Amino acid sequence: MKQSIKPRPKLDQLVNGILQGDRVILGQAITLVESKLEHDARLAESALEKIIHKTGQALRIGITGAPGVGKSTFIEAFGKHVTGQGKKLAVLTIDPSSPLTKGSILGDKTRMEELARNPLAFIRPTAASSTLGGVAHKTREAMLLCEAAGYEVIIIETVGVGQSEVAVKSMVDFFLLLMLAGAGDELQGIKRGIVEIADAVVISKADGDNVKAAAAAQTIYQQALHLLSASESGWKPPVLTASAVRGEGIEAIWKMILRYQRETTASGFFEKNRRHQHISWFRDSFSQLLQREIEKSDALRAKQKALEQSVMNHDISSQIAARQMLEAYYLAIRGNKT
Amino acid sequence: MKQSIKPRPKLDQLVNGILQGDRVILGQAITLVESKLEHDARLAESALEKIIHKTGQALRIGITGAPGVGKSTFIEAFGKHVTGQGKKLAVLTIDPSSPLTKGSILGDKTRMEELARNPLAFIRPTAASSTLGGVAHKTREAMLLCEAAGYEVIIIETVGVGQSEVAVKSMVDFFLLLMLAGAGDELQGIKRGIVEIADAVVISKADGDNVKAAAAAQTIYQQALHLLSASESGWKPPVLTASAVRGEGIEAIWKMILRYQRETTASGFFEKNRRHQHISWFRDSFSQLLQREIEKSDALRAKQKALEQSVMNHDISSQIAARQMLEAYYLAIRGNKT
Repeated sequence: MKQSIKPRPKLDQLVNGILQGDRVILGQAITLVESKLEHDARLAESALEKIIHKTGQALRIGITGAPGVGKSTFIEAFGKHVTGQGKKLAVLTIDPSSPLTKGSILGDKTRMEELARNPLAFIRPTAASSTLGGVAHKTREAMLLCEAAGYEVIIIETVGVGQSEVAVKSMVDFFLLLMLAGAGDELQGIKRGIVEIADAVVISKADGDNVKAAAAAQTIYQQALHLLSASESGWKPPVLTASAVRGEGIEAIWKMILRYQRETTASGFFEKNRRHQHISWFRDSFSQLLQREIEKSDALRAKQKALEQSVMNHDISSQIAARQMLEAYYLAIRGNKT
Repeated sequence: MKQSIKPRPKLDQLVNGILQGDRVILGQAITLVESKLEHDARLAESALEKIIHKTGQALRIGITGAPGVGKSTFIEAFGKHVTGQGKKLAVLTIDPSSPLTKGSILGDKTRMEELARNPLAFIRPTAASSTLGGVAHKTREAMLLCEAAGYEVIIIETVGVGQSEVAVKSMVDFFLLLMLAGAGDELQGIKRGIVEIADAVVISKADGDNVKAAAAAQTIYQQALHLLSASESGWKPPVLTASAVRGEGIEAIWKMILRYQRETTASGFFEKNRRHQHISWFRDSFSQLLQREIEKSDALRAKQKALEQSVMNHDISSQIAARQMLEAYYLAIRGNKT
């Protein structure tokens, strides 16, 4: 019952608490964002509305990698370095996988122990949702709450095996992919297309017996990434190695991210990317709201399912199906009024 | 004025002509699909509705590659081989680029001269549209019309430099990427992420002085693709070389595509992929219809623009903006009725 808040904070308490950087209130606000109760969601929305002008100033970093790549250890070392620079850091986790596999990322209670005790750091897994869209949406709002609470660097962590990377990519400024050195199958388990949307690849666990293999993997990835053309930002994704346990390579990664921020800010890409992201959040939210409205109605839900089936069976074209769906929707909206 | 049809064919003429494989009528039907006139679009929609049950039997192949890679020459040689097997082949072109750059793909009137005269082949560039969604939609419908007209292999051609690949990928069974051998910068000009969604890479122009470089490029790409994990289909994208002018490697490519069809049909992936595609066409069509409805209203269009601006300026959250947009939309729908 960790999710229930009794009594619920008032809107003013929430807003003031967040703006003052109160960690307990921030945690409560995120819980409200994640709540399935309409009342909670509305309260969170109102709070967000009051703090929205205080958002946007953080550097948003997405970090992904297959299970076992050492994400927690890396983020702990990276977070230690960032907070060591006096920066306030929030770590959010997005994981739309099933409850069964979710344990891999959320279950380990000993994750980031040291960072969790650091007064400059705030660590928070985002509650799972039935849809990726839902999770993405909640993580986005949690991120904005953290920004309003004064966190200057936000890390959004996800596993590299699902569809969540694209969602994370759409909400961060910089997207980092952690990889393990291995024998030719370095990318096994990483979904196709992820390497190509990364702004940097870091070969993790580059220590002990692994140093040589990590350097070899670095070369292989450099060659592979060299084959890919530059992205719109003009940034060429570098490949670095790091040992989180020995703290090696961490500073170089942080400096590399700051260089990205500097260069893309100078070129205007940083701000342009943000603007595009915000417009697409708006459009996403609109589609989701609409879909939720459709799902609220048994008749519309049934209609949608039937039309999908007809389209799959080549009984009607997708265009006609879409038109029929829109007509059913209009009828429902008008019917509700009268 | 090539776009105008005077007099317009009647619905029955259209439907019968298409089902009989009449090339002139098929061409007219595609022109109607592309027309911006509401009346034409509705006529095309009605025709499509009547032939939809005759669609879906063709093998749908997407072909992309940067300008200069030799797409036309390749498709000409490939088409010669496919029609040589007695198969009816339709080639459609999708190009959402600006009128200025469009010439690169559509402007050259001498493209595929031989194939154009082949009675088993039907070649048709799809008219440009202001939006990629619009082009994709039209190409999809043109493809269905070709299928109903009895074409057994459909090639959707696009340039590898825009966003159109993802649209093409979403409408074909097999996605082929043409590349040129070069000095380490083989993928220059190809958008990031395209290599990873390809079902095969073909190094083109592997003839004359280029043979060695093509073989080297083949090795490099094989290594790079080896780094990528298998896609959901279980298919490992092969890298082949071809010389269109010498007709070398063409048969191997056709056999490879047939092997893909065989293996993914056996595994059930082929059909599953099609079903997913059709559902997403339906959803796309629905979103587009909705957006068109919004754009029909000056007030709603202005509202959307204002909300986007507010979201970008951190004045309101994307969630609240979406809710306001939906409310405005509902008001408009209800207002229209009363």
